[in-house]
Amino acid sequence: MPARMSGPRRLLAPFAILAALLAASPAWAALPSWNAGAAKSAIVAFVTAVTSPGPAFVPEGERVAVFDNDGTLWTEQPVYTEVAFSLARAAELAKADPALAARPAFAAVLSGDRARIAALSATDLMELVAATHSGLTVDAFSAAAAQWLAQARHPQSGRAYPDSVYQPMLELMDYLRAGGFQVFIVSGGDRDFMRTFALETYGVRPWQVIGSGNVTEMVEADGGWVLTRTDKALGDDGPDKVRNLALQIGIRPIFAAGNSDGDLQMLQYATGATGTRFGLLVHHDDAAREYAYDRQSAIGKLDKALDAAGPAGWTVVSIRNDWRTVFPDEAR
Amino acid sequence: MPARMSGPRRLLAPFAILAALLAASPAWAALPSWNAGAAKSAIVAFVTAVTSPGPAFVPEGERVAVFDNDGTLWTEQPVYTEVAFSLARAAELAKADPALAARPAFAAVLSGDRARIAALSATDLMELVAATHSGLTVDAFSAAAAQWLAQARHPQSGRAYPDSVYQPMLELMDYLRAGGFQVFIVSGGDRDFMRTFALETYGVRPWQVIGSGNVTEMVEADGGWVLTRTDKALGDDGPDKVRNLALQIGIRPIFAAGNSDGDLQMLQYATGATGTRFGLLVHHDDAAREYAYDRQSAIGKLDKALDAAGPAGWTVVSIRNDWRTVFPDEAR
Repeated sequence: MPARMSGPRRLLAPFAILAALLAASPAWAALPSWNAGAAKSAIVAFVTAVTSPGPAFVPEGERVAVFDNDGTLWTEQPVYTEVAFSLARAAELAKADPALAARPAFAAVLSGDRARIAALSATDLMELVAATHSGLTVDAFSAAAAQWLAQARHPQSGRAYPDSVYQPMLELMDYLRAGGFQVFIVSGGDRDFMRTFALETYGVRPWQVIGSGNVTEMVEADGGWVLTRTDKALGDDGPDKVRNLALQIGIRPIFAAGNSDGDLQMLQYATGATGTRFGLLVHHDDAAREYAYDRQSAIGKLDKALDAAGPAGWTVVSIRNDWRTVFPDEAR
Repeated sequence: MPARMSGPRRLLAPFAILAALLAASPAWAALPSWNAGAAKSAIVAFVTAVTSPGPAFVPEGERVAVFDNDGTLWTEQPVYTEVAFSLARAAELAKADPALAARPAFAAVLSGDRARIAALSATDLMELVAATHSGLTVDAFSAAAAQWLAQARHPQSGRAYPDSVYQPMLELMDYLRAGGFQVFIVSGGDRDFMRTFALETYGVRPWQVIGSGNVTEMVEADGGWVLTRTDKALGDDGPDKVRNLALQIGIRPIFAAGNSDGDLQMLQYATGATGTRFGLLVHHDDAAREYAYDRQSAIGKLDKALDAAGPAGWTVVSIRNDWRTVFPDEAR
């Protein structure tokens, strides 16, 4: 097609008609990894309603969509990707610093012993995350994250982490953007960690990534100014997601997607007002192709939000039934 | 021109050539309110350098510009616009609430006596701002701000506040956007206050407005969910501007504009790294057309930042000399 597009303009008329036809049924072209069913139909009906003249129309500048990241856009099992990064980075730091290596949490990650690492307490993990996420410049942190992401592999699938994203959700973000939506990520993950891959992986610009983070301090270095990450962390989960997105976006979203109780308030806020609104919960029910977990899971627990979905009218997406393919490499 | 543009396509060729010529010299067309001089030349040279192939080229996604608001984009004398709003709103609240009206600060604004209002202490002002900025929903606050802005007039010029913006700065924002820049506002003002006019007045979307604000709380109301503004305020001045813009934008700006010592750190951060960067300070030196103030001013004090400008290579814009027109109504 591209070769013929460069021909004389009058030859383009048939293609223009074809393009118009495709534009008139964008879901057909835009959501190929979604199986036909209630979830896909609801998404298409929502986007059609808010983008078409009529009572549900929403002006383009007010079409704001927010997505959780871990478990909603990419795999969060068996550990959050950012925790995997923190463990790997902590081992590196311990290698270079005997005093650090003597501390129990660091000794565990340095040992590489999976059972010892799995037995780390929440306090241990916080010590490791504090060591890898604070006391360095924002640029150094981002560089370490990018370097790790470039070579790390998921322990079970063997995929690179940026390849562990959900193809149907990539298509959904594209479909929303094609409908004039501004797409934001609102995640419990560190925003600078996410920013190292969000543009390339999701097409989301750094300023549309909202997450947790460390308070920064500006310091003079080499005649210039840099930002260092202090040890004071700012959260972005549960109600904090709503606070942060309201402060940073300034418009109530009309679409929110999540997968766990940490997304409950964000979905309530996005859908808890008049007008046509959409709440989406990814339900991990596919042990064969991804993972199956919900109410009892230590990671990505989906319990209260699942109970809230019915009364609130949210769309619960079954990975097993609604997704034709899960990962991009299966779609190729 | 628009009428002729609707004619047959082949007639458009001459206009296309004209448009190309204009595009080749965008500053000529884009900055008409700027007098020829060092400031205008420096701006044009910077934008040309970072948008043209060569050693100073910056990819479009990294062209981030930040602007202070009060005194940089619009008049901040004799009082910040937001304080004028707060005083007017506090008087309204006191009218409806005798207990409030009995408090000295509220009694002063209720009296309408300019001398008494001018004599209010910082503590008094904080009490008034707390009353007008907290304890209500975000939507109610925004509605009150919009309502006030629609009818309020500047006490000396008689202009509506959205007409008290600087025409040359509007042109500068447009010029940067035409060069692929993302334009953000980073101001000590309340972000939800600014968001009520930023899009219409500056062409800046709500999520590109960074400012101070109150911590919010999500509460259930009428079967839906709303956000209320608590009395805990978050600042956005001086070093906080850098912290906030780093958290929210995620990319170090390559252009920063301000007018006071509250913008010092933001300019240092934007220009304090390698690569072609631009710092701009608006110097209020035009008592005839606007105001003249700098080192001794209670509002918009420009002292340390003015001293820093020379060594840092920032462009100090003289309103008197560099701006052909100051306000939009003078440009018509």
